[in-house]
Amino acid sequence: MELVPGNTLITATPQEGRELAITMARKSIGAIQPDADVRATLRPGYATNAEALTMAGHVVAVEFATIAAANNYWRGQPS
Amino acid sequence: MELVPGNTLITATPQEGRELAITMARKSIGAIQPDADVRATLRPGYATNAEALTMAGHVVAVEFATIAAANNYWRGQPS
Amino acid sequence: MELVPGNTLITATPQEGRELAITMARKSIGAIQPDADVRATLRPGYATNAEALTMAGHVVAVEFATIAAANNYWRGQPS
Amino acid sequence: MELVPGNTLITATPQEGRELAITMARKSIGAIQPDADVRATLRPGYATNAEALTMAGHVVAVEFATIAAANNYWRGQPS
Amino acid sequence: MELVPGNTLITATPQEGRELAITMARKSIGAIQPDADVRATLRPGYATNAEALTMAGHVVAVEFATIAAANNYWRGQPS
Amino acid sequence: MELVPGNTLITATPQEGRELAITMARKSIGAIQPDADVRATLRPGYATNAEALTMAGHVVAVEFATIAAANNYWRGQPS
Repeated sequence: MELVPGNTLITATPQEGRELAITMARKSIGAIQPDADVRATLRPGYATNAEALTMAGHVVAVEFATIAAANNYWRGQPS
Repeated sequence: MELVPGNTLITATPQEGRELAITMARKSIGAIQPDADVRATLRPGYATNAEALTMAGHVVAVEFATIAAANNYWRGQPS
Repeated sequence: MELVPGNTLITATPQEGRELAITMARKSIGAIQPDADVRATLRPGYATNAEALTMAGHVVAVEFATIAAANNYWRGQPS
Repeated sequence: MELVPGNTLITATPQEGRELAITMARKSIGAIQPDADVRATLRPGYATNAEALTMAGHVVAVEFATIAAANNYWRGQPS
Repeated sequence: MELVPGNTLITATPQEGRELAITMARKSIGAIQPDADVRATLRPGYATNAEALTMAGHVVAVEFATIAAANNYWRGQPS
Repeated sequence: MELVPGNTLITATPQEGRELAITMARKSIGAIQPDADVRATLRPGYATNAEALTMAGHVVAVEFATIAAANNYWRGQPS
């Protein structure tokens, strides 16, 4: 199973870094629970629960911290 | 969907960095649950629950840690 | 709304850094739930619940980690 | 009990780093609850609970942050 | 209220750093809930609940990460 | 009470670092709840609860992040 799309943490922009964070968070859930039917069953209860969404947002923030450090915070990019 | 306003982590001041942290936390929830009606339905229960608010504050703190590092903690700004 | 008092992460001492961490944690809750009456209503239930207090203490620890790094851990201060 | 496969945090790629993060997270659960029968009993309830899966994904993100730093974020690898 | 005993993060040893982490975690709870009677009332329920203890241990780990970085991980101390 | 065995964060290998992380996490629980009988009473309920185990694994991951940084990620060790 591909856990890191493109097998790199380097992205062109913060936006792409953020998208990678979301994807990586989702893929690790997929690795822990590989059955797509189970994940589909769980999704409505999860996506309509504020605390569960906040927990997911927390994981995205942690993944993004790593990706941002990997990219030296995209400091050199043109703004 | 725009996940990082301005597509940069660099801000002029800590205050702006904090505002960016709040916005980024909100936008990742929006990416996970794109249906604005669902988010609007969930908001009252969430915004009147102390533990849910603390969890959200935790996510803001994690996002801010990344933004603050990106900005070298705004050490060079005039105080 | 002022989210970072003084608009700087730099403080003279660890004690002041800790106070800033507590203030920043509180202010981000205020940004998420701007209604002071709601926050006042929630406070008793929250402040008398050990898990909620521990969660709040966790947020303070995360905010402080950022502030401490910003201040190079106050290594150069006279002890 | 082997807690870190190969006894190193260094991996060739982000994908392998991510796999190591998942393995290390699982092995520390094994160290805390060494009885494999108990872990097998717990697994269905855990793997079909969205919040439990998100919590597990959070741990993977934290383990990966350490592994990514150990590998200097694989910045020098060919893309 | 004194939040950082000695107003420094520098300690002679990891053991003292760990003790400081526990003290700082406790003092921030004291700042959030200043009423010692309330804290005393909450303590038995908290100290006999495994999840609450684990949450507290998590906060100690986060505080210690900051203190350890402040002390350059006590790398230069004689072993 | 000894909170850091050997009073150092330096270990020879990642495996030993991981063992130290588990021990340090346990010892801080012991410092918060010093009564060994209480801890023994709590253990079965905790060790057979998947979310509690995941929370404990999270604490180990945070402790290990500090220990790994202290050891420069054991980058120089022979593999």
